[in-house]
Amino acid sequence: MTQPTRITALPRHRDAGRRLNVVAGGAGFIGSHLCRALLDRGEGVLCIDSLQTARPSNLAALTGHPGFSFVRHDITAPLPASVLAEVPRIHRVWNLACAASPPLYQMDPEHTMLTNVVGTNHLLRLAERAGARFLLTSTSEVYGDPEVHPQPEEYRGHVSCTGPRACYDEGKRAAESLVFDYGRAGRAQVRVARIFNTYGPNMDPGDGRVVSNLICQALRGEALTIYGDGTQTRSFCYVADLVAGLLALMEAEFDGMQPVNLGNAAEITVRELLDQVVALSGTQARVVHRPIPVDDPRRRRPDLDRAAQLLGWAPRVPLSEGLAQTWAWFAAELQGELKARPAQAAE
Amino acid sequence: MTQPTRITALPRHRDAGRRLNVVAGGAGFIGSHLCRALLDRGEGVLCIDSLQTARPSNLAALTGHPGFSFVRHDITAPLPASVLAEVPRIHRVWNLACAASPPLYQMDPEHTMLTNVVGTNHLLRLAERAGARFLLTSTSEVYGDPEVHPQPEEYRGHVSCTGPRACYDEGKRAAESLVFDYGRAGRAQVRVARIFNTYGPNMDPGDGRVVSNLICQALRGEALTIYGDGTQTRSFCYVADLVAGLLALMEAEFDGMQPVNLGNAAEITVRELLDQVVALSGTQARVVHRPIPVDDPRRRRPDLDRAAQLLGWAPRVPLSEGLAQTWAWFAAELQGELKARPAQAAE
Repeated sequence: MTQPTRITALPRHRDAGRRLNVVAGGAGFIGSHLCRALLDRGEGVLCIDSLQTARPSNLAALTGHPGFSFVRHDITAPLPASVLAEVPRIHRVWNLACAASPPLYQMDPEHTMLTNVVGTNHLLRLAERAGARFLLTSTSEVYGDPEVHPQPEEYRGHVSCTGPRACYDEGKRAAESLVFDYGRAGRAQVRVARIFNTYGPNMDPGDGRVVSNLICQALRGEALTIYGDGTQTRSFCYVADLVAGLLALMEAEFDGMQPVNLGNAAEITVRELLDQVVALSGTQARVVHRPIPVDDPRRRRPDLDRAAQLLGWAPRVPLSEGLAQTWAWFAAELQGELKARPAQAAE
Repeated sequence: MTQPTRITALPRHRDAGRRLNVVAGGAGFIGSHLCRALLDRGEGVLCIDSLQTARPSNLAALTGHPGFSFVRHDITAPLPASVLAEVPRIHRVWNLACAASPPLYQMDPEHTMLTNVVGTNHLLRLAERAGARFLLTSTSEVYGDPEVHPQPEEYRGHVSCTGPRACYDEGKRAAESLVFDYGRAGRAQVRVARIFNTYGPNMDPGDGRVVSNLICQALRGEALTIYGDGTQTRSFCYVADLVAGLLALMEAEFDGMQPVNLGNAAEITVRELLDQVVALSGTQARVVHRPIPVDDPRRRRPDLDRAAQLLGWAPRVPLSEGLAQTWAWFAAELQGELKARPAQAAE
């Protein structure tokens, strides 16, 4: 009896069966796509997630795969014995664990900070013990409200360390510094990705990000919300591109002592994004303007030169295509909810 | 029998006997002066220190005072029962605990980061539990190598979060964000001081700071070391001024949700400092130039407007006077060592 052939566009490693990836935050939006991609390559995945902000259905879609195992755990606490027992098999440690949407990460700012610093530290110690390579998903938020545009990795950022976003922004900056200290001391091979705005299937409809907000509002026939006047810009990367970038970064052969921006450099205003969602949905709902949150960045666009040079990677999916796929996913996801509602929603 | 009168210029609180101050890092350079000042006001001091970078003689000078008690403890670990038992009496929590000299804090960068983040968090929880006011000694290092001069508190800084100084700089920024999150949530009354270069008695001769380095080299007849060409500037505050500022900040009645610079705005080049030490000592030793460390700031000077407005505080001791006092203290401190050396040292 042979195993059924797995159909995948990604290369399967010869020793894939022996490779175990620890993916902290693997039940989250990006994490769930990463777990899927690793499983599709024939590698093993041990997912650690507290499920505090993860969608249970992301996890459900992975559970049952023979290469997948799950430990419910909050990484601010020392790693449990069930994870430590896997040390001999652990080849890669990925840290994607942290609430990433401002309303969620600001609900418990102390926990957000500790997740980034103490959690990253626990995972770095695991990588050191296992001799595994470690990757931190940092964020474009380390640039704050940038005064340099687009943002290259050398830019030191413009972050308020006293405001309500600091628990996340400064937490990630602190996590980066820990990671590079491990790298500098030779305690682990390290990689740091600075992830810019990302969208796609598996986003949480309720986490308050602009793409999911607008699509869900359009699907529900609700008014479309814009914060401020909508002239602030973002650069949206489709999640499949982002995960390809993460995989390329983890496996790239360089010393790892530089962070690498991952995202999409096509910059649009939030207003233009809204127009695309309106065109896609045909919604005639009105637009409501809300006050712009404190320390909300005005502009964001990654400089992707380093990613191109070190990884040979660039995003491929245009916004129109990615939005259409995301729209279709949300439409299916919200189907039950929409069917149960009065006809007004279909207008 | 009455108690002997304590001679002090500082006001003694009426309820001083009931006030207990927890001073983490109280055996360090600034901490030991703060403990002394609090004791001189008739308040109680519970000093917590790991003694990893503190001078034992700083502690020895405090031990035996009836208002002083000491717990040897590393604040990265949960606070011991002996501290928690004092919760009903704790009125103020001061966090001065962290190695502050670059060679020392870079020896174990992971520990430096955890001291700032986890240690601060443990002390914030103590303050919350005790209903005590909390003060963090942050640092001018949160401004990094500043592009705005002098540095007002609104300046967001120019810090590398990937370099060897990041464990301290980003650790302090992360600690600030934790403190302000406690303040924002009403979990504790908070104060944050951003301390600029400080000097004076009780500095560790071996901790590698420029004032202590130059004075000790001059006293020992050794060559005087300058990093880079000596044109980088610093603004040196005498420790008695700094401690007066800390006391004023802790007791000032405002919401505490802004950091406050404490230091001295008289800016001189490192070369000018060297000339003053040469004049003071009469040393004829040669000057050696060493390479400037990575990310060493070029310029530093506090904008002290906020301190003046909120606290009515300004530094008073001119550098010439403070240096003379520091010189005298180091001369006494190194007396035994110098006597034991050959005559060359006296030249």
